[in-house]
Amino acid sequence: MSSKALSTWVEVPVNSDFTIHNIPFGIYSDKSVKHRAASAIGEYIIDLYELAAAGLISVNREVLEQIVLNDFITLGKPSTTKVRQEIIKLLSDENSELKKNQGLREKVLKKQSAVNLLMPVRVGDYTDFYSSMDHAVNIGTMIRDPKNALMPNWKHLPVGYHGRASSICVSGHSFHRPKGQQKPADAENPVFGPCKLLDIELETAFIIGKATQLGDSVSTAEADDYIFGMVLFNDWSARDIQTWEYIPLGPFLSKNFASTVSPWIVTLEALEPFRVKGYEQVPKLLPYLQYEGNKNLDIKLDVILKTQNGEEHPVCSSNYKYMYYTMEQQLAHHTVNGCNINVGDMMGSGTISGPDPSEYGSFMELTWRGTKPIKLKDGSERKFVNDYDTIILRGHCEKEGMRVGFGECVATVLPAKP
Amino acid sequence: MSSKALSTWVEVPVNSDFTIHNIPFGIYSDKSVKHRAASAIGEYIIDLYELAAAGLISVNREVLEQIVLNDFITLGKPSTTKVRQEIIKLLSDENSELKKNQGLREKVLKKQSAVNLLMPVRVGDYTDFYSSMDHAVNIGTMIRDPKNALMPNWKHLPVGYHGRASSICVSGHSFHRPKGQQKPADAENPVFGPCKLLDIELETAFIIGKATQLGDSVSTAEADDYIFGMVLFNDWSARDIQTWEYIPLGPFLSKNFASTVSPWIVTLEALEPFRVKGYEQVPKLLPYLQYEGNKNLDIKLDVILKTQNGEEHPVCSSNYKYMYYTMEQQLAHHTVNGCNINVGDMMGSGTISGPDPSEYGSFMELTWRGTKPIKLKDGSERKFVNDYDTIILRGHCEKEGMRVGFGECVATVLPAKP
Repeated sequence: MSSKALSTWVEVPVNSDFTIHNIPFGIYSDKSVKHRAASAIGEYIIDLYELAAAGLISVNREVLEQIVLNDFITLGKPSTTKVRQEIIKLLSDENSELKKNQGLREKVLKKQSAVNLLMPVRVGDYTDFYSSMDHAVNIGTMIRDPKNALMPNWKHLPVGYHGRASSICVSGHSFHRPKGQQKPADAENPVFGPCKLLDIELETAFIIGKATQLGDSVSTAEADDYIFGMVLFNDWSARDIQTWEYIPLGPFLSKNFASTVSPWIVTLEALEPFRVKGYEQVPKLLPYLQYEGNKNLDIKLDVILKTQNGEEHPVCSSNYKYMYYTMEQQLAHHTVNGCNINVGDMMGSGTISGPDPSEYGSFMELTWRGTKPIKLKDGSERKFVNDYDTIILRGHCEKEGMRVGFGECVATVLPAKP
Repeated sequence: MSSKALSTWVEVPVNSDFTIHNIPFGIYSDKSVKHRAASAIGEYIIDLYELAAAGLISVNREVLEQIVLNDFITLGKPSTTKVRQEIIKLLSDENSELKKNQGLREKVLKKQSAVNLLMPVRVGDYTDFYSSMDHAVNIGTMIRDPKNALMPNWKHLPVGYHGRASSICVSGHSFHRPKGQQKPADAENPVFGPCKLLDIELETAFIIGKATQLGDSVSTAEADDYIFGMVLFNDWSARDIQTWEYIPLGPFLSKNFASTVSPWIVTLEALEPFRVKGYEQVPKLLPYLQYEGNKNLDIKLDVILKTQNGEEHPVCSSNYKYMYYTMEQQLAHHTVNGCNINVGDMMGSGTISGPDPSEYGSFMELTWRGTKPIKLKDGSERKFVNDYDTIILRGHCEKEGMRVGFGECVATVLPAKP
């Protein structure tokens, strides 16, 4: 079936991320439901447990009333893809049981604004990559040497590191500004206090959909079988803590105080129409990192700052297509040594910056380490993120009348605890 | 009660790690038991489910038939400490029900050699520190500058980084030598192949026994309430992969192909008699890292290499007391930014090296990057670990006739997969 031919009897607002071409997966709760798997269409969530209870989708309803999607995803792509196609059919078919049965429809379709969207998966392990060349060049230029901005390994492998899974939160949370050691340039010793340079990182992340055993590797050609879908991801960073702590073993407390993910996992199938050609990779990579086909993705990404008075200010616009390494290469690299992966593992892209200064994915780059503050509409400035600022990430794909989006990834900064 | 006064009616061999002063916790299986919580005495494991079923320990038996100890540990120290004391009493008291009831005794006490010891906890997040000064100085001297071996931050904070939880295996496993990118010094480009410099890291790790919420911090004074116990830990490392990949974000594929833990968690209470004074820390640390009392531990540590023919060769002997930072400082640092911890999280010490070359905790240091090979009894040499080598870590405390030990932490290297 041509995805372009799809339409739905549910009213979907113009520019909705949740069209019939999307049908993502998430977990919701409301006053009567503790936690259930859901999908989304327009302004509604779709209660999948109720659909299964009515016998309208091919899945055991027990896996749909878990606190996370891990058990559902573990069923495997043949099962989850089938469920997604059944949902699409129910929403497309003017004569479907769901359309005809008003009582059922009222149990299944609930306004997104009336429910809570919960953390969609239990993340066993979380890895973050560093795969946008513009970002890596910007950072290298700023903190090292403009003439040798990229480290020697950068164009040979997707640099990555392990992150903290426990502090990943779902969109809608707030957190206290972290405290920690910072070393002012002119001081002999470090000082302790609230982070002064709190930053965002505009990222996406992919969710592992199939486990491997220790010792196994996943090739670039096999990788898509192991990727369930994607989310938006804000990898909050305390730049002053990071600068002092990260040598020689990498970021630690500068990254593990909070990270924000969007609640809907957009499946790889829904994203498939938006594949584009990847970067030309020179020098040529080792064979295990080579791949065939169009494996990059055209995903428009936006960052918005909402100040305490509720005003929204655009911060930057970037695009996933600026990634130098693809997800398939990241996963092949991650497993080439036999490292095992589990369903629910999350792998972040790293900050996604484009070539234009308006496309930089962090305040560090946007304000060039605070030297060029961003001017807001109300006349105030931002070098980094202030207390009570809310940061909103948005992301969507659009092509030939089809739109598939992620919704929002939102978090608010509270003052440091006393 | 004075712990020195303790004795048991179970026959405990001389130099057993599992005396009445120990009473560690683990998980076992055998032909009739899928997974149950256990303790150990002498050459026996103690089936805790059977003790609970007989009403002899104060704990709901359901938490004792889980695949891991997380639910048991989550009961909290007042409960788990009480259980441990009840076990000690059952094994000390000549008139205990366990001693008198032969049928029960046969169900409860099983030869350790006849059971499998499983992974004791589900590790949510794993962090590794870098807290032995001799190790950090050795590595810094080798790969950087002997005059500035320690990085500027090292004496101000316990440097740490996030590791991979999925590849942590329990003692007794084998794994394939990892493959990956290496960059020979004289080559223009990296090459791909089996790791040539496979190393061990002699470590211990502590297991978190109490969770915190995001935003909370644990002080050095509170830290012991959050530490359930300790294990031995071999943090296998691929030195050639590490050298090429680790700049600027730290170790990744060089560390996540396998890590080995010992199966018994020795409780902090059992280790308490072996506390010793910690390092004098100069310069003075920031207040949140200061602590009172004797918080280091005198734990003798040994590494043995067993070659394919079964011969054992001593590799090094070190001691936990060589740690510059204490566990309490590591945990206070880890949480000072509000990073949340969960029951079962594991925090590694980092390689524990002592001042004498015989006390270095890695082949990297012992053979000084391969320049001074270790001579084995059979005349062969080792610069790093060979295929089919088995590495055994052992650790124990001993004082005034009391001995408390960890048993063994064992793993065997298989050739790289073709």
